[in-house]
Amino acid sequence: MKINGIHYRTVWMEQNVVKMINQAVLPHFFRIEELKTHQETARAIKDMIVRGAGAIGATAAYGMAQVVLEAPDTGRFLEFILGGAQTLANTRPTAQNLFYAMERVLSAARQATTVDEARKRAVEAANLVAEEDVSSCNSIGCHGARLLKDGARVLTHCNAGWLAFVDWGSALALVYTATREGKSIFVFADETRPWNQGSRLTSFELINEGISHAIVPDNASGFLMQRGEVDLVIVGADRIAANGDVANKIGTFEKAVVAHELGIPFYVAAPTSTIDPNCPDGSAIPIEERSEEEVLYCGGLLENGDFGRVRLAPPGARARNLAFDVTPARYISGIITQNGVFAPQEILKALADRG
Amino acid sequence: MKINGIHYRTVWMEQNVVKMINQAVLPHFFRIEELKTHQETARAIKDMIVRGAGAIGATAAYGMAQVVLEAPDTGRFLEFILGGAQTLANTRPTAQNLFYAMERVLSAARQATTVDEARKRAVEAANLVAEEDVSSCNSIGCHGARLLKDGARVLTHCNAGWLAFVDWGSALALVYTATREGKSIFVFADETRPWNQGSRLTSFELINEGISHAIVPDNASGFLMQRGEVDLVIVGADRIAANGDVANKIGTFEKAVVAHELGIPFYVAAPTSTIDPNCPDGSAIPIEERSEEEVLYCGGLLENGDFGRVRLAPPGARARNLAFDVTPARYISGIITQNGVFAPQEILKALADRG
Repeated sequence: MKINGIHYRTVWMEQNVVKMINQAVLPHFFRIEELKTHQETARAIKDMIVRGAGAIGATAAYGMAQVVLEAPDTGRFLEFILGGAQTLANTRPTAQNLFYAMERVLSAARQATTVDEARKRAVEAANLVAEEDVSSCNSIGCHGARLLKDGARVLTHCNAGWLAFVDWGSALALVYTATREGKSIFVFADETRPWNQGSRLTSFELINEGISHAIVPDNASGFLMQRGEVDLVIVGADRIAANGDVANKIGTFEKAVVAHELGIPFYVAAPTSTIDPNCPDGSAIPIEERSEEEVLYCGGLLENGDFGRVRLAPPGARARNLAFDVTPARYISGIITQNGVFAPQEILKALADRG
Repeated sequence: MKINGIHYRTVWMEQNVVKMINQAVLPHFFRIEELKTHQETARAIKDMIVRGAGAIGATAAYGMAQVVLEAPDTGRFLEFILGGAQTLANTRPTAQNLFYAMERVLSAARQATTVDEARKRAVEAANLVAEEDVSSCNSIGCHGARLLKDGARVLTHCNAGWLAFVDWGSALALVYTATREGKSIFVFADETRPWNQGSRLTSFELINEGISHAIVPDNASGFLMQRGEVDLVIVGADRIAANGDVANKIGTFEKAVVAHELGIPFYVAAPTSTIDPNCPDGSAIPIEERSEEEVLYCGGLLENGDFGRVRLAPPGARARNLAFDVTPARYISGIITQNGVFAPQEILKALADRG
């Protein structure tokens, strides 16, 4: 997708350096970060310089390729790789795409018979993970756009746009594809505290694509649904269990329950790399709990033009900061993958369809 | 209630000056505002220097008393009073307590036969509105505390504490009374964007009362309920329709739907002054829509110790800012008033019980 007319991917690799758009300072500053080691890349994932299911996946793939490139030519080769994999795995526990992508790179490297070949295969596999992310998201947009009628008013939560993937996005790919088909789509973007992915990133994407929108406090979308101002809800996913339960940004569950109660379709859009067939149901998905500070403060652009934060709560206040929640399959109308739209209870069929 | 050991009311009147705690800068600064005219008082309501059902009511009562005190001794007496009433009525359209309180003062002034007597009666009536608010909230605490078992984990939304009334509060009065009865209560406080009444005001009250709490993003309470971490939900109300539908801070509806879905009790606590018997159901309650700026920015304490704000959204972003929503009566387990706990569908009985 384009920023000010120039095409960017969210993350890519040049030689052994991982490059990414810094999502922590968007939309106020546009900065490309250069991460020279796998430790720096792991830190960028943990600190949410990069975030979003597919973007985390591609970054982890590149980080794993860095590990293989950095591993010494000695007997410590394997030990180094396992240590590096551990560092990357410890960043974002809920993100299925992270584990999927690392496994893809590790598996490719394992097939090599020489260290040099392992390095080459690891980089190729990481690039393939990124390419597949792009083409999957493109297909998701095509499959899903049929669900959007001209004039549709879509509610989305967090950012499941191109910034959350390598390109195109998942939930927002539907909107982008439908718009290019000539349909007029209006998007309500939940602001998505505490990190404000909606007000910072989704609105940034929509403005760059010229799509009408309104940011709403996370509190407001239920009432908008009650008032008949929302035709359907589309969100992304961070992990999909075998039974169709979906872990996604905290707040997704509330939107799903309200949509279900009011008879409003609630769709999840995700590439099959987000499916965890080893996870029987949502209760087995590990839920990341992040720092209280993200809730006690709010970051943004200061009036002097610097990036900064304000403290909301008084001294001594405590907070809880669960990063994700689980939406049981029964609240989900369908899961849109690159292989088509599936009932959540039949999501494993999407894997069987994988070419 | 006390701040640093000193007892305060949220709003009071000395001579013809209305004094109030500035709630826009809490908890970072403790400032008493002095409003010398009814226009200044109306502006303080509109700008949310004072907010919350009962506190708006008492302030409107005092503002109406100011109008009667300020009205000229001439033929323009009545015209001035009607103009002042209009100014006050135009501040917060959803707040039933505002209209209730103004009517109480106007009605008292109307019974006078001289201008001097009208002024005296108006001030007396305003003080009575404030006194009744205190005693009603005290009774709400006593009736409602029975619902809280030792060890109860309560979720509340926005601030329905003593800052939202003249003293004690509505939803939090239950917690304060139960705590004084020796029960251990834990409170989850929704932060309540965009104005952060939860992270700023509810946590401030709870810290002053020594009550354990955690601020949670508005997104998180549904998942906490799903995980079994919430025993009951208690919120306040800004207007209660005759059929038991409740207007309250935006987001209340979502919490109510999720609580209902999960079988968690959902209570509303409010004095009978919040009931609007002329409003047949929630669809007839006017819903205030406030400035987009409140959503596009977030206010708080800057690192240099000043009060300020950060911008969240990019240039060109749009927002919607509905201040309240309507929770249909069927999602409400009971409404706790000074006259006891009522089924929402029978809320008019609470008025009949008024002594």
